[in-house]
Amino acid sequence: MSEPSWVPDGESDRTIEENWLFRLRRERYRSRRSGQAHDFYVLHLADAVSVVASTADHRLIMVRQFRAGSGRDSLETPGGLLDPGEDPMAAGARELKEETGYVGDPPRSLGTVWSNPSLMTSKITTLVIPNARKVAEPSLDHGEEVVVELFDDRDVPGLIQEGKVDHALSVLGLSAWLLSRHGIL
Amino acid sequence: MSEPSWVPDGESDRTIEENWLFRLRRERYRSRRSGQAHDFYVLHLADAVSVVASTADHRLIMVRQFRAGSGRDSLETPGGLLDPGEDPMAAGARELKEETGYVGDPPRSLGTVWSNPSLMTSKITTLVIPNARKVAEPSLDHGEEVVVELFDDRDVPGLIQEGKVDHALSVLGLSAWLLSRHGIL
Repeated sequence: MSEPSWVPDGESDRTIEENWLFRLRRERYRSRRSGQAHDFYVLHLADAVSVVASTADHRLIMVRQFRAGSGRDSLETPGGLLDPGEDPMAAGARELKEETGYVGDPPRSLGTVWSNPSLMTSKITTLVIPNARKVAEPSLDHGEEVVVELFDDRDVPGLIQEGKVDHALSVLGLSAWLLSRHGIL
Repeated sequence: MSEPSWVPDGESDRTIEENWLFRLRRERYRSRRSGQAHDFYVLHLADAVSVVASTADHRLIMVRQFRAGSGRDSLETPGGLLDPGEDPMAAGARELKEETGYVGDPPRSLGTVWSNPSLMTSKITTLVIPNARKVAEPSLDHGEEVVVELFDDRDVPGLIQEGKVDHALSVLGLSAWLLSRHGIL
């Protein structure tokens, strides 16, 4: 990996907001190339996992929940934020069980990417968990209300095309799963 | 589309930060199901476009630029935020020309999704622009430094697999392009 083309120039950095979920900062960087300084807004947020989980009979396990950014209920792959120091594999299995009550095979990673590095420090790992079966009732955090929905896994292309799944990071995970399944990735 | 399961309960809403890029608000919603209220952080941000552009000889047009969230230079599909009232198709052609100096065929949409609706109001549209040719030098905003890089479009799976492209929204766009090309989406 090459050196970043901009370097921290932190004199005027400041924290704008800090709460249980994130720390929003304004951070100054200076370009090695031009010498110019520029202020960037950076949301410091925990890394996340997104889980493409299915049952032994090829039912995809999805969750539906309210999202304040869209003001709508959103159909998504199960997932959530990593606890401090938590491994993404462990977090994926934990989030799947907490949100849906399902437990499956050990997770397999489909890759890790930066969620939105122009603004956020967060990475997201997409995991596949096959052979999941329901072993418990969901156990949700305060303010979480999640409805579990099962789909035939052959309907994944339709769910994306018809906009039934329209959360970028869930579409990303399902796309990675489709590309892997067709031997393209 | 069904009714959202939570409704605004705005008494304690407040704006935490407002700047040229976004408005960060804390907004209270109440669950129709449980009656419970919960505060959500919502980043009000403009919609965006991401452009999978290629030349007539199947070279993919990518940009590399510093991203403060990752603290690294990031290889991405060209794109950016819509101007107020701007159509995504127009924005895609404009961003491609501004960032790279390339102009191509009229854009075709590969779909629109919410970028991260748990936190942000923004949608992103992925566009395909084929037959692009260089007609000008890039014309960049203050604080933007963009390096244009061309790749053989057959190398897209490798760019994703090797983590050379690791911005979720760029990987999403390239994945949509791969799925469309293989007739899966």
